Amino acid sequence: MIHRLCVIGVGLIGGSLALALKKYEACRRVTGCGRSIQNLDKAVELGVIDDYHTDPAVAVQGCDVVLLAVPMGSMQAVMQAIKSCLSEDAVITDAGSTKGVIIEVAREVFGELPAGLIPGHPVAGNENSGVVAATADLYQGRRVILTPHENSHKDALHKVVQMWQAVGAEVKQMDAELHDHILAATSHLPHMLAFSLVRELANSPHHDNIFRYAAGGLRDFTRIAESDPVMWRDICLSNRDAILAAMDRYRDELDRLQQAIRESDATALYDMFVEAHDARAHFRRLLDARERDCGH
Amino acid sequence: MIHRLCVIGVGLIGGSLALALKKYEACRRVTGCGRSIQNLDKAVELGVIDDYHTDPAVAVQGCDVVLLAVPMGSMQAVMQAIKSCLSEDAVITDAGSTKGVIIEVAREVFGELPAGLIPGHPVAGNENSGVVAATADLYQGRRVILTPHENSHKDALHKVVQMWQAVGAEVKQMDAELHDHILAATSHLPHMLAFSLVRELANSPHHDNIFRYAAGGLRDFTRIAESDPVMWRDICLSNRDAILAAMDRYRDELDRLQQAIRESDATALYDMFVEAHDARAHFRRLLDARERDCGH
Repeated sequence: MIHRLCVIGVGLIGGSLALALKKYEACRRVTGCGRSIQNLDKAVELGVIDDYHTDPAVAVQGCDVVLLAVPMGSMQAVMQAIKSCLSEDAVITDAGSTKGVIIEVAREVFGELPAGLIPGHPVAGNENSGVVAATADLYQGRRVILTPHENSHKDALHKVVQMWQAVGAEVKQMDAELHDHILAATSHLPHMLAFSLVRELANSPHHDNIFRYAAGGLRDFTRIAESDPVMWRDICLSNRDAILAAMDRYRDELDRLQQAIRESDATALYDMFVEAHDARAHFRRLLDARERDCGH
Repeated sequence: MIHRLCVIGVGLIGGSLALALKKYEACRRVTGCGRSIQNLDKAVELGVIDDYHTDPAVAVQGCDVVLLAVPMGSMQAVMQAIKSCLSEDAVITDAGSTKGVIIEVAREVFGELPAGLIPGHPVAGNENSGVVAATADLYQGRRVILTPHENSHKDALHKVVQMWQAVGAEVKQMDAELHDHILAATSHLPHMLAFSLVRELANSPHHDNIFRYAAGGLRDFTRIAESDPVMWRDICLSNRDAILAAMDRYRDELDRLQQAIRESDATALYDMFVEAHDARAHFRRLLDARERDCGH
């Protein structure tokens, strides 16, 4: 049971966690923190938070768990602000999309990594944002990846694991570097591809016809290009090397395909498409099994 | 009213048209043609076709409309086979994904382009295939692009327009070259990107973890990679130049993005993602309006 949770950044991610913890009675009180009074008032009205402060240093006082749910680019400033006001045993976790940078920034701000810091990444969310989009079931059956470090205390880890399990998430632990590598491949790279495709189509001299004649497949394929630009700017800045490496590998793959098309190499094309087809079918079966398991 | 329709290639595309024409009583009789007796028997059993022949030269006899719904790579052989057996006023149309090649092949086979030939492309279909996947509503509210040529007779065009309108499709006409250019951008390029992404992920040393931790976004993004390898091989061979040009433009876009990431250029990244976000939102509104219009 969490005594008092402080959610810094009351949007889709932080708001949904607060709603879910209340629904499952896993938290007694939630204090919100953010820059927009209007948003915080809305969050109180929606029952997402019980009270709020706009100053993080005040908001965290007396809280046993602090969730940093701000854009990656604001993590350092928030850590700096709360640093000297945290309760002695406070557990600090975050919902940032990259994890290596959280550890790096925490080391800079705190001098040494706090025993109460458990970096985390709920692999959930959608193209909506803001507290009005928050729902209590956002994390149901979703994965949350925690990346504890060498100083992380087991009690702090236990508390964060319990918090996410209480809202229906499946918690995994791994090294921050592996996390960033995997997310670069499965999430960051696809977003870069979708952003680039939409830009390419929009800049085409035929763009009116292009959007007019596009079929349903393109809708699915480009959905993620509507994600929040600030969040994606920050992800690019904070996971730069892994994203660049994934993009390089992708370009090699695209090169091979383009070469086969250029040479009208029917056999190579067929083999490539069969491999892709089979790998996607394997992936679909994995996802279907997971969704069956968690009742989605 | 079509007196007797010959569907060469009784799969999702040809089968769905036959089912829909029967449902709306726009066709008296459908003769199927294909290589697999088992598939043709199934089509009869499902009420998709009334009878069949495995020899296209026999199947087309006495038919006033012939639909070629075979892979692009088989179009030439089928045209050659039916060439001397078509009724005098027979209308020939097709469901191929590229149109320039259809005109090229027809010119080679027939010597000059037949007045009854109206190349067409129903922009519909899904990742399923085979006559068992055929449904009468596949074309409801979908676009069908016809690319008549300089010899096309207006009566033939009229008959094909009526056929597609009868099954609920919205018919558009354009030049074959523009069609191939637009489809390269909106359909062929996204497929190439999805095939390459799935191959890149599958070939990664971390591929088990990658598929395990992938979120829902990747599922949508890679769905089209499960499309039929034969069809996509043939599309690449038959629309090579337009696809290569689209891939080149895309790589330029990807270069710009990668450059901004490499330089940690926050402003450039933000601007690019805002442009992509806004273009995708515009596209979504267009699609939503279209779906409202046709009751999807």
